[in-house]
Amino acid sequence: MKVYLERATKVQQRIDEISLYSDDTRWLSRNFGSEALKECGHKIASWMEEAGLDVRIDNIGNIRGRLFSANPEAKIFVIGSHFDTTVNAGKFDGILGIVMGLDIIENIKAKNIHLPFHIEIIAFAEESGIRFHAGYLGSKVIAGSFKNKFLEIKDEDGNKLSQVLQSLNYDISRLKQDAIPAEDWLGYFEIHIEQGPSLFEKNIPVGIVNNIIGQKKIEITFTGESGHAGTVPMNLRRDALCAAAKFILGVEKYASKEKRKILATVGALDVPGSASNTIPGTVNCTLDLRSEDGQLLSDAYEFIYSLCEKHCDKRNIYFEWKLIHETEPVTCSKKLRKLLANSIAEKNIEVTYLDSGAVHDAAVISQVAPVIMLFVKCLRGSGRNPIENVEEYDIAAALDVCDHFIEQLSVASLKSIKEKIKIEI
Amino acid sequence: MKVYLERATKVQQRIDEISLYSDDTRWLSRNFGSEALKECGHKIASWMEEAGLDVRIDNIGNIRGRLFSANPEAKIFVIGSHFDTTVNAGKFDGILGIVMGLDIIENIKAKNIHLPFHIEIIAFAEESGIRFHAGYLGSKVIAGSFKNKFLEIKDEDGNKLSQVLQSLNYDISRLKQDAIPAEDWLGYFEIHIEQGPSLFEKNIPVGIVNNIIGQKKIEITFTGESGHAGTVPMNLRRDALCAAAKFILGVEKYASKEKRKILATVGALDVPGSASNTIPGTVNCTLDLRSEDGQLLSDAYEFIYSLCEKHCDKRNIYFEWKLIHETEPVTCSKKLRKLLANSIAEKNIEVTYLDSGAVHDAAVISQVAPVIMLFVKCLRGSGRNPIENVEEYDIAAALDVCDHFIEQLSVASLKSIKEKIKIEI
Repeated sequence: MKVYLERATKVQQRIDEISLYSDDTRWLSRNFGSEALKECGHKIASWMEEAGLDVRIDNIGNIRGRLFSANPEAKIFVIGSHFDTTVNAGKFDGILGIVMGLDIIENIKAKNIHLPFHIEIIAFAEESGIRFHAGYLGSKVIAGSFKNKFLEIKDEDGNKLSQVLQSLNYDISRLKQDAIPAEDWLGYFEIHIEQGPSLFEKNIPVGIVNNIIGQKKIEITFTGESGHAGTVPMNLRRDALCAAAKFILGVEKYASKEKRKILATVGALDVPGSASNTIPGTVNCTLDLRSEDGQLLSDAYEFIYSLCEKHCDKRNIYFEWKLIHETEPVTCSKKLRKLLANSIAEKNIEVTYLDSGAVHDAAVISQVAPVIMLFVKCLRGSGRNPIENVEEYDIAAALDVCDHFIEQLSVASLKSIKEKIKIEI
Repeated sequence: MKVYLERATKVQQRIDEISLYSDDTRWLSRNFGSEALKECGHKIASWMEEAGLDVRIDNIGNIRGRLFSANPEAKIFVIGSHFDTTVNAGKFDGILGIVMGLDIIENIKAKNIHLPFHIEIIAFAEESGIRFHAGYLGSKVIAGSFKNKFLEIKDEDGNKLSQVLQSLNYDISRLKQDAIPAEDWLGYFEIHIEQGPSLFEKNIPVGIVNNIIGQKKIEITFTGESGHAGTVPMNLRRDALCAAAKFILGVEKYASKEKRKILATVGALDVPGSASNTIPGTVNCTLDLRSEDGQLLSDAYEFIYSLCEKHCDKRNIYFEWKLIHETEPVTCSKKLRKLLANSIAEKNIEVTYLDSGAVHDAAVISQVAPVIMLFVKCLRGSGRNPIENVEEYDIAAALDVCDHFIEQLSVASLKSIKEKIKIEI
């Protein structure tokens, strides 16, 4: 265990170092396209280079380091997570998976272990959707699901994604070529803090993700009529904020009926051109809908749309509804889960399965490759929050499990090659 | 009438010229401290100078032009309004009263009319409260009710009012001396568009304001706990935006019961550091409460505070409540109203009295001087809105009334001087 604790200390030090790259001195925030994110990416690239990996930065800004296999039939196994953050974020979210992944590959290299597959560590440049309200742009490029229309999305200052990428000297004409073709994948592995309390409450260092929640992300604009707060009688108002308030409470009520197994959040809201003495004429807000059940998710989407329509009709408010992102619920690869469960059990850790209420890059990659996720215990299950904390002991335990998992994957992969049967995972 | 139509054309031209000074090319907006506001002030000052007035810019940025009386016992009669605007404003709000006031004084000067009082036109630099959420800063300086603590108020970018004033080269140590002492006032006259539909519906060019509504302006911060939209179960959330939504609807419901004669508006709302996939931990919003009845206003204030407390307790949300501005309901001077009514009647215009649902600089000045307001008919009663429009014919009629009003005031004033009795108005 001592060697793993030493490796965990190094992981912690790197996470601390990365946490200094921030757009804001008051808190941790690395927004897509910012100077801090760029410098953070260069730091990660320099570690990959020191590790002797074949390093490149692709045209969305993903940092990619590959260790090639000598096997002529080698497929690619990717370990990945993201290095952008939300605003006022915790220091482990995303970066833990990158730094641990790098440590695992450094160990393979140091011990001169020969793998029957290429192993690539990918640090995704955009996952959080803060700047362009889209999200998962990094993994979408890798999965080949990045659409050209994304280039037209604008940030709050009116900059198009295409302009931002060009200002970073990325070649937007090569975004398609940055994808890893479906036939080349062996699988995808993502290590991430659990952004919930299960492992913390059970005091178990790691858990296997069975399912990743499905998500729909919607942008809504309510348009009423602005007017003077002192002259328009209450009964003649068409107040867009009151309509939005009614909607928000309707959404909360619907999702709160537990049997529906729906999570619904109005996370962002703004009143453009607002003043304390002006009746709000326009309100923009977002709606985040999640469920582990695809049918329930669709039902909720339909119901909440009707609810919005009903409230707006009643108040003579016009609304625009834009579905800007959706991922179906994902079930992680059964074979990879089994390999990971064996690795955990052999390290005398209780095997725990969980579902992920957060969507991860793994959900995007699942469209082209078998995916698996390992959650690491996090203080009180906090996530997206500066108080998030991961203990060194748990990182050490997780590294031990991961080394063993890659070993088992190697054995299984070799076996399938020897049997001249494609590995099915 | 012809000469008044010619003067009205000049007023319209000046209003058009002023409307080109804007912080934003997309709409009209002159925020306190902006370059556009400063240049606009210089333009107004240049007109005052051309008119031969004694011009100065005071230390909050008010533009003041005085025509001195030869009378050794002269008091000061002020005609004023503001030249800052809300965001996406109409071009008449505020500026109409300045440009018309200037035209009235130009006419006095041109005709070499000797008045027994000094007459001063004041263009207030800040009324709207957009930048510092305070409002009426210009007239507060004139009335001597500007408090030093206002200098500490910060705008959204963290700039203190004191810093903004210093950057404009104003001397904040002289703000007190910019006031007109209570004993020097003869009265205050404000011409303003009606920001309601009464005159438009009756097709009457002008109306006399009886009462100006009382107002309380409150800033509220709701603090819950932010968290990940995909991992925190609905029943464990402390969503600050849901609490704010509940509050907004409670306020709307309370004020909508017509018998209460209360106007209540949540005009501005923002979710700092928001993201579509983060449960809102903090919400800032404003509350604007108005009533013509001081008691009803206090009752509403108390009730709505309790309402906020109740909803927040229930949801385990912490809230901060800050009363940032209040004006009592104001009744305009009876004597000045009578003089104005006579002037209107003698011009064969139906005498119409209205109440003002908007608070004006007149309400602030009423603490130290008798005040009177003349409303001018505005298209469909729109205000704070780019569609606001005033017809030339109505401006001409209003100028005719105002000339006559100043004449009558002069006569009444002379009479009282002759009688060695202080004029009581």
